Amino acid sequence: MEKAEIIVIGDELLIGQVVDTNSGMIAGQLNMLGIAVERTTAVHDSEYAITSALDEAFSRVGLVLMTGGLGPTKDDITKTTLCKFFHTRLVEDPAVKQHILQLYSDRPQVLNSLTATQWQVPEACQVLENRVGSAPLMEFCKDGKLLYSMPGVPYEAEVAMQEQIVPRLRSMVQTNVILHRTLIVYGIPESSLALLIADWEDALPEYMHLAYLPSNRMIRLRLTASVHTDKHSLEAEMSARLDALKPLIHDYLIAEEDKPIEVLVGELLKKRGETVSSAESCTGGKVAMLLNKHAGSSSFYYGTVVAYDNSVKQKVLGVKSDTLESVGAVSEQTVAEMANGVRALLGTTWGVATSGIAGPDGGTKEKPVGTVWIAVSNENATIAQCCHFRGSRDQITTHAATAALILLLQQLKK
Amino acid sequence: MEKAEIIVIGDELLIGQVVDTNSGMIAGQLNMLGIAVERTTAVHDSEYAITSALDEAFSRVGLVLMTGGLGPTKDDITKTTLCKFFHTRLVEDPAVKQHILQLYSDRPQVLNSLTATQWQVPEACQVLENRVGSAPLMEFCKDGKLLYSMPGVPYEAEVAMQEQIVPRLRSMVQTNVILHRTLIVYGIPESSLALLIADWEDALPEYMHLAYLPSNRMIRLRLTASVHTDKHSLEAEMSARLDALKPLIHDYLIAEEDKPIEVLVGELLKKRGETVSSAESCTGGKVAMLLNKHAGSSSFYYGTVVAYDNSVKQKVLGVKSDTLESVGAVSEQTVAEMANGVRALLGTTWGVATSGIAGPDGGTKEKPVGTVWIAVSNENATIAQCCHFRGSRDQITTHAATAALILLLQQLKK
Repeated sequence: MEKAEIIVIGDELLIGQVVDTNSGMIAGQLNMLGIAVERTTAVHDSEYAITSALDEAFSRVGLVLMTGGLGPTKDDITKTTLCKFFHTRLVEDPAVKQHILQLYSDRPQVLNSLTATQWQVPEACQVLENRVGSAPLMEFCKDGKLLYSMPGVPYEAEVAMQEQIVPRLRSMVQTNVILHRTLIVYGIPESSLALLIADWEDALPEYMHLAYLPSNRMIRLRLTASVHTDKHSLEAEMSARLDALKPLIHDYLIAEEDKPIEVLVGELLKKRGETVSSAESCTGGKVAMLLNKHAGSSSFYYGTVVAYDNSVKQKVLGVKSDTLESVGAVSEQTVAEMANGVRALLGTTWGVATSGIAGPDGGTKEKPVGTVWIAVSNENATIAQCCHFRGSRDQITTHAATAALILLLQQLKK
Repeated sequence: MEKAEIIVIGDELLIGQVVDTNSGMIAGQLNMLGIAVERTTAVHDSEYAITSALDEAFSRVGLVLMTGGLGPTKDDITKTTLCKFFHTRLVEDPAVKQHILQLYSDRPQVLNSLTATQWQVPEACQVLENRVGSAPLMEFCKDGKLLYSMPGVPYEAEVAMQEQIVPRLRSMVQTNVILHRTLIVYGIPESSLALLIADWEDALPEYMHLAYLPSNRMIRLRLTASVHTDKHSLEAEMSARLDALKPLIHDYLIAEEDKPIEVLVGELLKKRGETVSSAESCTGGKVAMLLNKHAGSSSFYYGTVVAYDNSVKQKVLGVKSDTLESVGAVSEQTVAEMANGVRALLGTTWGVATSGIAGPDGGTKEKPVGTVWIAVSNENATIAQCCHFRGSRDQITTHAATAALILLLQQLKK
């Protein structure tokens, strides 16, 4: 199996001002090709740091992918550093120039003397097309070592991988068979789950590996197999192993594919020809954002009322003032009235609602921070649950939005 | 100035299933202490990979912080690897045991034989309290090298840094004076900005450095100064430099402090005693989420109607069917009616609205994907803008939500 390393370049990553998402994206794409990422390194925009990281990476692997430092401003030095590393010089590339002039044809004010440095590229590299930006996408190949340098802007890096680098690597690499299968469980702590399936896990052959990936109160169980063998027989063996696992985790299993919850919900709603709306207090729009995150969501998602202020719960969603006065906004009765209110108002099959205390302030002894009521309703029934989450404000609302969608998923699966 | 490296451990990071946010968080905290992060390395849950990365990091710096691999399951091997690295063994720690039993006192079902491995800790380390979790927080100090190992769960790592590691480091390190000042500009490309301020930038002394941090169509200009000198005189010099810069970028300057736009908007609304609501089509709740992201937002944010389906725009927000039929949902008239509709419905001072084509489908020649109308209204005026964004669905809606808040910020500043 081929091995690779990733180097991400940028001062902003090392002072914590920007979170690097490129290395994860690149790793995911390489993984699908059967190329294992050994290591990811983040370094400063410094010639010494970049050169050292390159030397070290190439001492371990034959393939390096890097992002960043390709902008037109003074702090971007990747291109000149690569010229020194590969003993070459910058030359004007007419095709790159043509592409950049075309790219900015509707925004000529963007073009200036700094932009012009963007069509200066290292003579020794092959420039690949960066369809969505002006920074060059470069391939260096020397002494059996292969290097790709791509822009640090996440969207540009993603397009570069998908359209240029992945197709080229696919035709180059000799890969092992590597397969992943993922089950998603919810409602059981990681260590309890590990004990529950210990015998099954111990019996796995040495070419299969189980990883526990806890995230947002769900645990993805990812079974990976890598072996020089026939793909179909490996797939069959993995299926048999998982069929033996499923009865053990039946009570907690919510999905048998590695898709986000909102995608599973959307697929079921579309299949049933049903629609959904949400009424949100503490989650403040997070359920909405999950429901409309993906293209095509307009076929099942109609809309949301974020009723942050209690006046909105009453005026727009029709929650009774009696309810708010007697049991408060964070209660079974309020969240049920919210779910039914939004369903009636927007005319959808399902209504989903949340009301809770996201913190850090506003908790009481009876309803501490992290107390969230969630509800799902259709014309036949309203189901409400009280949840207790821990963590920051952002975590509590994210957990609550996920819990609401899982409750909906469970109703849709019935 | 002290230097440090960060090592993040986890197979899931190197196959792209989870994005590492810990290294950025840690880097940010160290930076505030005047400790420069030289490099961040992500490695697999493998004894060889962890040990190599540690050896290499300690050959360059005296301080290493690592996250991950401390869970109770088989794929977590950081603790045993550190025992080998520091030539020590695991022993039961009564204080850690007591803490874990206390932590789970309301959830005894979580306790089992795997949880019990959590109070086995390396004899040679000092265990620091992990207030919010069961994985140990460890400090190793040997031959002048200092290592902190903390959990990979982001919230636990953050609490570990804030409550334990940062206070300890603060009392240990001898730091240089390092200062950052940030201005935020909007509406000018990076290369044009660089040309505009080239003379100013060239005149900076060698101990000051300007970084361009483009993000979400804004550019943060971060001026960093690091020198063995009096903090107050350095602050005064930075202020003088920035005072000379501001007139040059006056037309694009939207903020003089490194705060998120929604915080700046919230501060102004609170100061004016005013309130806001939003009506969203393409942004699908992103404006809402920004407005209620931070604690205390309930004093100025009332709620949102996500009107994804046109029926919701009419029924709930009162957009006229004439308007939708004659000029369509993505139009100045519709977005203006949405902004005024939500403002009237929820009874707020300001209404913010968005309507556009997020893609990837749904574009036309006249209104291509990325066309978004935004509007801000109060009782005196309604201001609408047509924007054209590029990028993915997620980027277009994020850009649109930001643009809507910037439009509001500009009105509030008038």
